Amino acid sequence: MSNFFRFDLHKMDGAARLSTLHTPHGPIEMPAFAPVGTLANVKTLEPRDLQEAGCALILANTYHLYLRPGHALIQKLGGLHGFMGWHGPMLTDSGGFQVFSLAHQRKLDENGVTFRSHIDGSAHYFTPEKVMEIEQALGPDIAMVLDECAEPLNYAYNQQALERTHRWAERCKVAHTRADQALFGIVQGGIFPDLRQASAQFLQTLDFPGYAIGGLAVGETKPEMYATLDVTCPLLPTDKPRYLMGVGAPEDIVEAVYRGVDLFDCVLPTRIARNGALLTPDGRLNIKNAQYATDPRPLQEDCGCYTCRTFSRAYLRHLYKAGEISALRFGTIHNVYFMMELMRQIRAALQAGTYADFRSAFLQRYQITNQAVRHEQRERYLARPRS
Amino acid sequence: MSNFFRFDLHKMDGAARLSTLHTPHGPIEMPAFAPVGTLANVKTLEPRDLQEAGCALILANTYHLYLRPGHALIQKLGGLHGFMGWHGPMLTDSGGFQVFSLAHQRKLDENGVTFRSHIDGSAHYFTPEKVMEIEQALGPDIAMVLDECAEPLNYAYNQQALERTHRWAERCKVAHTRADQALFGIVQGGIFPDLRQASAQFLQTLDFPGYAIGGLAVGETKPEMYATLDVTCPLLPTDKPRYLMGVGAPEDIVEAVYRGVDLFDCVLPTRIARNGALLTPDGRLNIKNAQYATDPRPLQEDCGCYTCRTFSRAYLRHLYKAGEISALRFGTIHNVYFMMELMRQIRAALQAGTYADFRSAFLQRYQITNQAVRHEQRERYLARPRS
Repeated sequence: MSNFFRFDLHKMDGAARLSTLHTPHGPIEMPAFAPVGTLANVKTLEPRDLQEAGCALILANTYHLYLRPGHALIQKLGGLHGFMGWHGPMLTDSGGFQVFSLAHQRKLDENGVTFRSHIDGSAHYFTPEKVMEIEQALGPDIAMVLDECAEPLNYAYNQQALERTHRWAERCKVAHTRADQALFGIVQGGIFPDLRQASAQFLQTLDFPGYAIGGLAVGETKPEMYATLDVTCPLLPTDKPRYLMGVGAPEDIVEAVYRGVDLFDCVLPTRIARNGALLTPDGRLNIKNAQYATDPRPLQEDCGCYTCRTFSRAYLRHLYKAGEISALRFGTIHNVYFMMELMRQIRAALQAGTYADFRSAFLQRYQITNQAVRHEQRERYLARPRS
Repeated sequence: MSNFFRFDLHKMDGAARLSTLHTPHGPIEMPAFAPVGTLANVKTLEPRDLQEAGCALILANTYHLYLRPGHALIQKLGGLHGFMGWHGPMLTDSGGFQVFSLAHQRKLDENGVTFRSHIDGSAHYFTPEKVMEIEQALGPDIAMVLDECAEPLNYAYNQQALERTHRWAERCKVAHTRADQALFGIVQGGIFPDLRQASAQFLQTLDFPGYAIGGLAVGETKPEMYATLDVTCPLLPTDKPRYLMGVGAPEDIVEAVYRGVDLFDCVLPTRIARNGALLTPDGRLNIKNAQYATDPRPLQEDCGCYTCRTFSRAYLRHLYKAGEISALRFGTIHNVYFMMELMRQIRAALQAGTYADFRSAFLQRYQITNQAVRHEQRERYLARPRS
């Protein structure tokens, strides 16, 4: 790591880790969860909301910002920090995941990937060097290498994709020159232990300041995901942060921390909030349900967020049912706070050396949303037009 | 007025008045402007935003809240104040205006008005007594009598409507019993001086604690509206507050204060914000215009609102163009702050005895939106389905 970054591993509790990643825009106490601000805004929230919730890190999407308003404009206006008024740590993904899930007419070659914008159909070409140019212009504290996120259950595809991903990682490393930005490598390999091992080993020869685990939470089952973490975490260096990309269900975070992951991001808490699914220690609560129509209690009795301090379930339900924009915001304020509070509890348990107990108690109480419902939600999500 | 209310007229500057209306939930320094929270929420904002902007009073719509979630539920949850978490002064309209502009299949009789909900077509009947029951259940500090808002340019219609409106005002007065709620009368009569005079005289025999001027800003020209204020204000008692309903364009407020109005409400600043029209001392700025794409300046250089303190025009335009929900909120935060700042400046000029100069300077700088554009916007608004 450069002088701008420092990773301090304070303590281990089993495989779980309590640590701090110091960045140019401040420290990230880990395990940490990063809300996603796709278009340089965490939907319905503003920087002071994120501070109030205790967010240390937020993520923005390179693909979306490259398409609009463009990385050159953002750079001119002070980079992502200046542009969006967030002065804490930031991370951008590489855009690879969106190119492979959102863009049209993708064509992959050794040098990069051609695609058409999901907004206006315009043609674009991402190479490792181009993505480094974009991420360095956007200016987050942490940037990600361009990788190919393969369908996790297809061995042959993953094997082939992995080799290209490794060559791209090398090229990203060469093209990346900003000392005040840490470039993380991404371990791929689907659910296959030998591919994960090959990927972790290869990437460590490039000595990245942090390692992400990619290609999970994209279609495999939870047991498959946990098994892959069981295999992958021990392959990663202990003195570097570990980032599980795109994972944000509370139960998955609790399980992944248990296996040694430090950092997470996901649209889940913000997206489901806009749908009326609000997180509580007992699981998701669908605030639109008729049973809450006259309920004077706060959404979550012991929650310290503005929504729970100010409004009743009956009022929130009224706003959701009436289609009021504020409903989406009040739900998002709560869900982000819930996630930050979960991470605070996780860190406190690690500090106390009681993480195994915390995990058991959490999982016993937190009712996991039915997998069929989740799968259906995911399919509906993947099928819809997005921005 | 009951012991719960007191009106202090501090000073006059020409016909303009500096005053305070004390209510059970606090004082309203006047001239004052009330943002509208139709469904018990000022769209995209929360109570702390309104406090931060310096709002003293907010309005909610009886018609909308009666239909959903219902006044009985709101009463059970602590009235409007408890329900929406706003603990400052509140006002509800009578629902009459919405019944006559929004509802379907209206049928008027001497006793009241039958209508169908614009949401589900269900049939309802509003009488003066029913509306008093609803407003007393909702529990704002100020309630309004049920009136008929006639087309302002039709003499015969206004003459006929006026008599019924007066009989309804008498019945409202009888039915209204909450001492901690002030019931205001509404002067009608379109643009016709003799009808305004008859209405003002009759209503004063009922000795309301405040008088609204209704039936304006609903189709007449600005000169017609100002001429009607010239006629009507001198007909009203000096020791009671005067409320011009539904008026919220900055230039109209400046002109109405000049003629002796104390209180205003309008959806304008919040509605146009959601359309990207942002208020500045030079007039409305359409933030979606291409010229702002790279503009690093705040929306309004000297504005103290969160939006202007935090974001550039380029960032705001990006959010509006990308359809981000936060854009609507950031625009609304600014427009509401702009209105509150305008009222602060008005009160300061009245205090200094320089209102005539303030008015001239404001109107010279503030570019009024083209009337044809406004008319078209209004027609488009009236034609759309609403909630």
